Amino acid sequence: MKVGFIGLGQMGSGMAANLIKAGHEVTVYNRTATKTQALVAKGAASAAKVADACRGDAVITMLADAAALAGVSFGENSLIASLSKNKIHISMSTISVALSEKLAAAHAEAGQRYVSAPVFGRPEAAAASALFIVTAAAPDAVASCQPLFEVLGQRIFPFGDKPSTANLVKLSGNFMIASVIETLGEAMALVGKAGVDRHQYLDFLTSTLFNAPIYKTYGQLVAEQKFEPAGFAAVLGLKDVRLALAAGESLRVPLPLASLLRDRFLTLLAQGGEALDWSAISQLAAKDSGQKA
Amino acid sequence: MKVGFIGLGQMGSGMAANLIKAGHEVTVYNRTATKTQALVAKGAASAAKVADACRGDAVITMLADAAALAGVSFGENSLIASLSKNKIHISMSTISVALSEKLAAAHAEAGQRYVSAPVFGRPEAAAASALFIVTAAAPDAVASCQPLFEVLGQRIFPFGDKPSTANLVKLSGNFMIASVIETLGEAMALVGKAGVDRHQYLDFLTSTLFNAPIYKTYGQLVAEQKFEPAGFAAVLGLKDVRLALAAGESLRVPLPLASLLRDRFLTLLAQGGEALDWSAISQLAAKDSGQKA
Amino acid sequence: MKVGFIGLGQMGSGMAANLIKAGHEVTVYNRTATKTQALVAKGAASAAKVADACRGDAVITMLADAAALAGVSFGENSLIASLSKNKIHISMSTISVALSEKLAAAHAEAGQRYVSAPVFGRPEAAAASALFIVTAAAPDAVASCQPLFEVLGQRIFPFGDKPSTANLVKLSGNFMIASVIETLGEAMALVGKAGVDRHQYLDFLTSTLFNAPIYKTYGQLVAEQKFEPAGFAAVLGLKDVRLALAAGESLRVPLPLASLLRDRFLTLLAQGGEALDWSAISQLAAKDSGQKA
Amino acid sequence: MKVGFIGLGQMGSGMAANLIKAGHEVTVYNRTATKTQALVAKGAASAAKVADACRGDAVITMLADAAALAGVSFGENSLIASLSKNKIHISMSTISVALSEKLAAAHAEAGQRYVSAPVFGRPEAAAASALFIVTAAAPDAVASCQPLFEVLGQRIFPFGDKPSTANLVKLSGNFMIASVIETLGEAMALVGKAGVDRHQYLDFLTSTLFNAPIYKTYGQLVAEQKFEPAGFAAVLGLKDVRLALAAGESLRVPLPLASLLRDRFLTLLAQGGEALDWSAISQLAAKDSGQKA
Repeated sequence: MKVGFIGLGQMGSGMAANLIKAGHEVTVYNRTATKTQALVAKGAASAAKVADACRGDAVITMLADAAALAGVSFGENSLIASLSKNKIHISMSTISVALSEKLAAAHAEAGQRYVSAPVFGRPEAAAASALFIVTAAAPDAVASCQPLFEVLGQRIFPFGDKPSTANLVKLSGNFMIASVIETLGEAMALVGKAGVDRHQYLDFLTSTLFNAPIYKTYGQLVAEQKFEPAGFAAVLGLKDVRLALAAGESLRVPLPLASLLRDRFLTLLAQGGEALDWSAISQLAAKDSGQKA
Repeated sequence: MKVGFIGLGQMGSGMAANLIKAGHEVTVYNRTATKTQALVAKGAASAAKVADACRGDAVITMLADAAALAGVSFGENSLIASLSKNKIHISMSTISVALSEKLAAAHAEAGQRYVSAPVFGRPEAAAASALFIVTAAAPDAVASCQPLFEVLGQRIFPFGDKPSTANLVKLSGNFMIASVIETLGEAMALVGKAGVDRHQYLDFLTSTLFNAPIYKTYGQLVAEQKFEPAGFAAVLGLKDVRLALAAGESLRVPLPLASLLRDRFLTLLAQGGEALDWSAISQLAAKDSGQKA
Repeated sequence: MKVGFIGLGQMGSGMAANLIKAGHEVTVYNRTATKTQALVAKGAASAAKVADACRGDAVITMLADAAALAGVSFGENSLIASLSKNKIHISMSTISVALSEKLAAAHAEAGQRYVSAPVFGRPEAAAASALFIVTAAAPDAVASCQPLFEVLGQRIFPFGDKPSTANLVKLSGNFMIASVIETLGEAMALVGKAGVDRHQYLDFLTSTLFNAPIYKTYGQLVAEQKFEPAGFAAVLGLKDVRLALAAGESLRVPLPLASLLRDRFLTLLAQGGEALDWSAISQLAAKDSGQKA
Repeated sequence: MKVGFIGLGQMGSGMAANLIKAGHEVTVYNRTATKTQALVAKGAASAAKVADACRGDAVITMLADAAALAGVSFGENSLIASLSKNKIHISMSTISVALSEKLAAAHAEAGQRYVSAPVFGRPEAAAASALFIVTAAAPDAVASCQPLFEVLGQRIFPFGDKPSTANLVKLSGNFMIASVIETLGEAMALVGKAGVDRHQYLDFLTSTLFNAPIYKTYGQLVAEQKFEPAGFAAVLGLKDVRLALAAGESLRVPLPLASLLRDRFLTLLAQGGEALDWSAISQLAAKDSGQKA
């Protein structure tokens, strides 16, 4: 397929490389243009402006946040202004339900197709074509994107035809991960103050009922209390919990555990945790209990 | 070994049967004496009173709650009054840290040995010798019990020589399970109100990051909203969260997520959920959001 | 003074009437024009469009929410587009800190003066010139408005020269009132379930330590559980708590009690409480505890 | 009346002195006997043991906590063992609902009368006969105590004939005060981080909607952040919130705001606040937000 790719961060550059390798014709765009060079070396075309990445069958966006996505999507010379009728915008960033709804409406009005396809996975998973992709859009549009998704992910989970549903599922997933972090933080603060070794405790957990990647990965971070460098920054954790809460507010669904998480992230950031991994909220329970980090 | 077994509920009767089958000489006691019959048929001796179950090398207690355990342990003709010097009380019930400390002191004073050995696992695991056993006691005492533990469990996790530590670890584990239930409840309330099918959502979760027995087991209960019959009753869930909070209070460790869980259990019980499984707290998020059960 | 007045709701119409009666030359504007008639009868001039209310020394806005205020303030023929240099916009609505900062910047750029002056008080207080007015702006601007404030309020509280500070103080005050409501709700749920008469309990509270208008006013509503008609709608309560939380997020100040209140309002609205007074969140504690309304 | 008085702490010694001054025949007892001297000088008789204070028409207990009260009430030579039939135990300490119920049952069994009469007021109010007294007991028993209550308090609030109801009302009142402290702490953390002067803010609050003694007294402490010496120690604050939560648990009434307060007190104590006034929980919101004390 002929496809544009906008957003060449840690995630996007690996994904774009995989598409090139699989034989798709890829035109890449990034605000900081130097990031396109490595991909051009691998066979990508380079777009000087957003519009130039919107000439193909589809254009993928993989940006850091809603502001960045809104910036390339709306206005003069934007993605929406440039994409031909019936062509597809595949939106893979983690964004709010509200922005996804706004994009869906704008694309519908412009006669374009919009596929919401946020992903689960870290940069290594992106590079290894091992992402989990959650999709929601009109079935024909999702079907058209299938060749791309098969390259990018290890499994695709379709969630109906309303695009913003995929974004909600993505946000709910990040909420669940943050809940695991908080749970580990409280449990380790409790047993830790009684003198239990954190690594021994983690080994017990992950050898028994909590034998899952998520507990192993985050349990390790929490037990070691090593939160730098950030795999996923605390400020992004706050953003995602806020977006989950905002979706809950629109839907009238109170989420008290998400409220607790929001307060944890704010506390962490207020106390200088801007540069830390989001799993650093786990140390707040220990800190409140008077234990040293 | 020659061993007494006090408490023949759903857990205890399977455990005692396994000890008999493995060739240990078992004397069983239960307040409601009829429960001893099946085990006597398998080769157990029956004790008419607590003291009669305390003549061997060790006596195991596996009772429903702290009151039951305190009832058999203290006072005239009790376990502590009857056990010979150096013999061992293996306490496998889920009890408070405070009661475990009190038992440890009382046994020390009586020249007896006390091994705290609470378990993780449902009745089926007990019957299948597949429990996880968390132990804490003086090393020689734990070593003496090893032949019994090997019969009862699939793996033993030693947590040092202070008996109450094992109880704290057990309580922390139940807190973690309850956290999983609450997390699933909130996440499903959120996506559910947006129209996502709960089973499809669960399949997505357990196929990706949350690929663990705990999410499969409880996710199924939460998705189906089938909370009867209770595998583990809500009132016991409340008890264990309360005991975790009490341990946190003694240690000066605030546990805000456990506080939230306590309020959930109270709400469930106040609204008539006495007979439900503890996973029924998951429906409160949906209920608060105006969704029908 | 020659002054425009935009927003003739329950609060605004009483305030504008007082300005007229005090001899100020008032031009009124309201989106629904019929609301201007009563004031014209009292001596006001009627503005056909926003710009016509912006010809005097100052223009007061008293609107229901941020969207309404933003609607009249920005864009073609708006307040900012119409006000002459050095003239004053007195913003008395309850709005977000962020919108207040945006307005401050826009007025500064346009060479106009901006006075933030939100108020405490219900419609009766507005009609009786008994509002409490919180102000923040450049001292000369506040001084220019003094003749108006003296007509509208019983006391003015200046909070420095950064306009948004007044909005923050206003939001913090509404958070505090909502906290009183929640506190009363929980306390009455507790003693009420033990059989204590709510009115007798309230009499005790307000005769002793809680002898304050706020406890009398809201205590009465909570004890009677009469939440219609709404003096201040639940949806506005949610809005103000959300704005307090948003200000807290910008400033990095976690507010766990405000988070709890937000969840209460969402629950109330999810369960059909759109038309109720915000004090109706007090019934949720009783409801959770299984007491009938 | 001929009355015994057990417990001569800051509260009790002032109360006993007032009874003597009013002409009652008072026999005082205190575990640390030296505290009786000042009262003996004023005309009291001194009891060498608890039983000696139980020979009159009534015996008042005013002790620091439940353990102290249980200690004098139950067992050999205790209050219950010594009081004659039909004589009255007036229990004025702040104790749990459960202990009050236990005392009521024990006195009934012993043919004695039991009046629950906890108080609101600090030591100065006790000394000035200005306490608020909450009573619950059989009407004839309360009537018999009336001459004593009139000396001790400025007003009596009867709450029916079930003694523990008075204790519940007392606990609910302390919960409400702690809620005021938390509310002030969060509001001041919010406006404080925006640069608002805390005293100016407090003046605004107490001049407007929050014009009540409770906001003035605690607002002053919170604004000054002066938490030593403790008027009411943080550890007692924790105890009372815990007792309110325990009462809520028995009654099946979830109290999420009380749960939040409990976590605040635990955090304060974990971080070294044992010696501080309970209003010191107000500084935690500021601390979480990165503001220095």
